[in-house]
Amino acid sequence: MGQIDLNSDLGEGFGPWSMGDDKAMLDIVTSANIAAGGHASDPETMFATLGTAAARGVVVGAHPGYPDREGFGRRVIPMAPAEIGRMVAAQTGALSALAQMAGTAVRYVKPHGALGNLAAADPAVARAIVAAVAQLSPRLAILAISGTALEQAARAEGVEVFSEIFADRAYLPDGQLVPRSRQGSVLHDPDAIAERLIGFLESGTMPTIDGGTVTLAAQSICVHSDTPGAVAIARGLRTRLTAAGVTIAPFL
Amino acid sequence: MGQIDLNSDLGEGFGPWSMGDDKAMLDIVTSANIAAGGHASDPETMFATLGTAAARGVVVGAHPGYPDREGFGRRVIPMAPAEIGRMVAAQTGALSALAQMAGTAVRYVKPHGALGNLAAADPAVARAIVAAVAQLSPRLAILAISGTALEQAARAEGVEVFSEIFADRAYLPDGQLVPRSRQGSVLHDPDAIAERLIGFLESGTMPTIDGGTVTLAAQSICVHSDTPGAVAIARGLRTRLTAAGVTIAPFL
Amino acid sequence: MGQIDLNSDLGEGFGPWSMGDDKAMLDIVTSANIAAGGHASDPETMFATLGTAAARGVVVGAHPGYPDREGFGRRVIPMAPAEIGRMVAAQTGALSALAQMAGTAVRYVKPHGALGNLAAADPAVARAIVAAVAQLSPRLAILAISGTALEQAARAEGVEVFSEIFADRAYLPDGQLVPRSRQGSVLHDPDAIAERLIGFLESGTMPTIDGGTVTLAAQSICVHSDTPGAVAIARGLRTRLTAAGVTIAPFL
Amino acid sequence: MGQIDLNSDLGEGFGPWSMGDDKAMLDIVTSANIAAGGHASDPETMFATLGTAAARGVVVGAHPGYPDREGFGRRVIPMAPAEIGRMVAAQTGALSALAQMAGTAVRYVKPHGALGNLAAADPAVARAIVAAVAQLSPRLAILAISGTALEQAARAEGVEVFSEIFADRAYLPDGQLVPRSRQGSVLHDPDAIAERLIGFLESGTMPTIDGGTVTLAAQSICVHSDTPGAVAIARGLRTRLTAAGVTIAPFL
Repeated sequence: MGQIDLNSDLGEGFGPWSMGDDKAMLDIVTSANIAAGGHASDPETMFATLGTAAARGVVVGAHPGYPDREGFGRRVIPMAPAEIGRMVAAQTGALSALAQMAGTAVRYVKPHGALGNLAAADPAVARAIVAAVAQLSPRLAILAISGTALEQAARAEGVEVFSEIFADRAYLPDGQLVPRSRQGSVLHDPDAIAERLIGFLESGTMPTIDGGTVTLAAQSICVHSDTPGAVAIARGLRTRLTAAGVTIAPFL
Repeated sequence: MGQIDLNSDLGEGFGPWSMGDDKAMLDIVTSANIAAGGHASDPETMFATLGTAAARGVVVGAHPGYPDREGFGRRVIPMAPAEIGRMVAAQTGALSALAQMAGTAVRYVKPHGALGNLAAADPAVARAIVAAVAQLSPRLAILAISGTALEQAARAEGVEVFSEIFADRAYLPDGQLVPRSRQGSVLHDPDAIAERLIGFLESGTMPTIDGGTVTLAAQSICVHSDTPGAVAIARGLRTRLTAAGVTIAPFL
Repeated sequence: MGQIDLNSDLGEGFGPWSMGDDKAMLDIVTSANIAAGGHASDPETMFATLGTAAARGVVVGAHPGYPDREGFGRRVIPMAPAEIGRMVAAQTGALSALAQMAGTAVRYVKPHGALGNLAAADPAVARAIVAAVAQLSPRLAILAISGTALEQAARAEGVEVFSEIFADRAYLPDGQLVPRSRQGSVLHDPDAIAERLIGFLESGTMPTIDGGTVTLAAQSICVHSDTPGAVAIARGLRTRLTAAGVTIAPFL
Repeated sequence: MGQIDLNSDLGEGFGPWSMGDDKAMLDIVTSANIAAGGHASDPETMFATLGTAAARGVVVGAHPGYPDREGFGRRVIPMAPAEIGRMVAAQTGALSALAQMAGTAVRYVKPHGALGNLAAADPAVARAIVAAVAQLSPRLAILAISGTALEQAARAEGVEVFSEIFADRAYLPDGQLVPRSRQGSVLHDPDAIAERLIGFLESGTMPTIDGGTVTLAAQSICVHSDTPGAVAIARGLRTRLTAAGVTIAPFL
């Protein structure tokens, strides 16, 4: 049945506030996208999350977002692509420094929220992020949504890139996600979610919302950390995948 | 006559706001302590300052401060030493990442304002900063006020440390700075300032406020960047030192 | 048995983050100290909390704190008393404007966390807060810990002041709270907590940690909103007080 | 020759940083749009600016902006109109409280930067701002760019509104400003600027970029405070207008 990674957005608290149950999620995922002080987090939150990830052998990536905690990085802040590249570098640098103190290392970058959506769609933004990552370290990879501008920019620049699919999102025939505004865009039944993913791992194709299938390549499955029931859904998915003979292991 | 470095705190703007005349100062100093997003700065300001420093061959250091832009890092924010270490690491990491993009590298760390004062006086804080610097990179040095807890902690840990004296501050017999609250603590006459420093470079001793002298060791002179007439004072000092046969060169 | 108010610190989320279960607490308390953008909150969080309080007939007060979300207002930020007064005014003004939009009005001010502790102990800070409140509106009262500098300053200035006691904190013979660092400072048994308060309402005296009693005056009991089991403890206290014949009603 | 107001955006510093020469401008203008903690300012900066304005008899208005100091309120932060209304209320409330402490009162609201541009063009945003202002106080007016959605929304809601024209901007035949991206959009010659305004005050019409004229109504002229030579340009304009017999006086 092969092997796949489970990734989730973690360390998204700030000061006294927490978001989701990071400790539980770090028992389930094999890669953690850790907020880096843009849309969420601060040095203490970063260090604590990095330490827990390190203790559990979870691979860590930087999860940079717009510098907009009030909006949690879900609002596009108008910035030139070069500014975005520098923002990603600064956040990744901060997280990397704390990773060294926590006895681990940042291995990849996955942009958050509105920045992730823009990087998926806008080649100039995608190229700026890839260029920043390449300048920081030849050892840093990118984790991108399968089939996006970000994935293409990384390949074009020779930056190592891994692709993710979403456990609970419906797909369009062209491999894009069904927009959240459309009915049926988000799946809620844990059994159906696991079935789809086992099917994908067997066939390399995902069902589409119109009843067809689309061929996707992915080394990781993104599971949510902060939605209701997130831990139970992620744990159930991991259990079902493992029972079906899938090896859950980091892509790096 | 030997050689000395001139350092100054630079890149202390934020968003639309600037502080002092960085471009003029970067023609005068040989080392730049660049704000790293704590008491001042943001990715754009850091990158621009780093780029100008790189273009002029000025050595760059990180200038971390309390995360308190409103107070410009001049207020002590109560934090445990370990928290301070992580804060210093995060800021230094962010600046280092942008330095790579700007074609330079962060070579040393000098804490700012209230954090610098605390690190000079409190051995636990000094050790936490030194430990953070050591964990980030064996190639990072510390720039400390001559004779302080920070200098001692760096020596004790085997972290490379350079010492600075202040061009315009009076000294106590024990080598400490005369507190700003005391009359005569700050010198204003450019000629007198230059005379003292030339005397120090010749003799290794500085005049003290009570009429005696104190032996100090220093590889750098700190010049202000944001006080009235700062550029003219710094330029005058450099001219006078050079005329006296002193070589102005970075300590790193 | 008389009457008493129950107050709690609410609206202490920020952007995507929440703190405690405000909706449940607003069914229990009769006065809500609502964070005003200093240690927590933002316009959306303020407005939502004010709206829920208004819908339930809960009296609202401003809960200003140091502008330090990362530290949740629990760290003293060095500020002159006059600066503190202006900070309190700005936060109270922001909350008052949103209260008008939410169909209610800010009726009192209770400082938060480290600011509250300082206002309890430091007469100059207490006077600055009282002066700010008095300048904003003659209709604004102050809610102070019983027996503190803040209460005294309000009385001295002729600003209406109400006093609170803590449901779960032990008292010293002089009426001060036993510091949290001391054993026995915090009570955990809901029955014992309710007993003490019923006893206080009957006698006007509270047991002290050394086995004696102290006379206190209070118009309100402060219940926590963000500790484990906070809602159950507060609800249990209200039920027990009501069963004992105490009327729970706002002090304003 | 009639009468006109001169207004300018002031109090746009933050913490240690200043923007323009507020004290000089407050000797020239008759109305001050004072930043309120969104795109710029903090309680100390607000209070100081309000105090200077009060001492010189300058009428004060609130100048709310997006909560984006790094971008100085020049970037559109995606927000629903109702959220914008609450943001404007919170900032205006904060400034109003400090105005009371400074012995003055906020008399009008003028949105800043990207928010001002959006309010000029988007009727839903304009209505939300007008509704917020109306809910805060029946005594608060709006200062809007002549001919915009904001001016229309205020009239439709019965909120007192005053209109401004720009001293140094060229106009389109429909009364809109020539976009800054177009050549000739900004005028630089102080004499030409004064001539146009004197002509406008005589005729009620402004020259347009295509050589025609457009009828405009305005009670105020907006002068810049933070561009090179801003103080000299504003002072020159005031001198020329006064010399031509125009009375410079606040609209409120």
